[in-house]
Amino acid sequence: MKAIQLYYPPEWAHCYGCGYLNPMGLHLKTYWKAEEGHSETRFTPSPHHTAIPGFVYGGLLASLVDCHSTATAAAAKAHAEGLDLETHPLRFVTASLKVDYLRPTPLGPELVLVGRAKEIKGKKVVVETELYANGEVTVRGEAVLVQITGGFGQENNAPKGG
Amino acid sequence: MKAIQLYYPPEWAHCYGCGYLNPMGLHLKTYWKAEEGHSETRFTPSPHHTAIPGFVYGGLLASLVDCHSTATAAAAKAHAEGLDLETHPLRFVTASLKVDYLRPTPLGPELVLVGRAKEIKGKKVVVETELYANGEVTVRGEAVLVQITGGFGQENNAPKGG
Repeated sequence: MKAIQLYYPPEWAHCYGCGYLNPMGLHLKTYWKAEEGHSETRFTPSPHHTAIPGFVYGGLLASLVDCHSTATAAAAKAHAEGLDLETHPLRFVTASLKVDYLRPTPLGPELVLVGRAKEIKGKKVVVETELYANGEVTVRGEAVLVQITGGFGQENNAPKGG
Repeated sequence: MKAIQLYYPPEWAHCYGCGYLNPMGLHLKTYWKAEEGHSETRFTPSPHHTAIPGFVYGGLLASLVDCHSTATAAAAKAHAEGLDLETHPLRFVTASLKVDYLRPTPLGPELVLVGRAKEIKGKKVVVETELYANGEVTVRGEAVLVQITGGFGQENNAPKGG
């Protein structure tokens, strides 16, 4: 199975979180699980991704939710409209991001993010995410994503974020 | 003037975003502007902190809002209660984080975050942030912070984040 981010055209693949062309980035990879109707991103933080020692930095957790949500939006819209990302690449950016830290996330284990599209309407998708550590949900996220179709930062594409 | 983060005790100074003991971290520094009654954090992203080329990665912007808000909470509470952070260090962690990306944030200029405490109630502080690039607000943040008084991750301190 090919990660959703690997379908992004090169000009949209420089993201620090998930761009395959960013040599310094996190290279997050999200997969669409058609049978379950949800997406999945797995990432193991590095030792320096610390909040208080022993726990994962909240800014990194927000970053994981961010890129995971943009990819989920692309996959969910493609699935809903019967599009093949290979021939119809979709790229979303973040208009708003909400992250609830339900409990401290232990630093060490692989983290698993599961995402579902709550709403798909035109160029807007709302994605809900649960982030698991050791099988327990430690973070919930909700992101509003907007599809970009032209240049990023053009007036017809604002507002947008990361 | 001493940055708020430099008052954190060593055991709480390993944060990837703002800990002075994290050799790989961003080393964010936030200052309390007593006359204005607000906090200020300045940070210039690196070229690899890209979203779409030319613009700042949303996950980094969320990270800036996160650490800026925890520091603002400490300073605002100290100011409200007449505490000296030198002798009464306060450390907050994030319970929830909301970031609205109003428009793309250009990658290049120094970013300026201005924070205000909207609510201070016991161990909880709510901080509102505006992030400026080239003098224009590109991001708004709202964070709920919780003061830690014992070990992070202990039951009496949950829930908390980064």
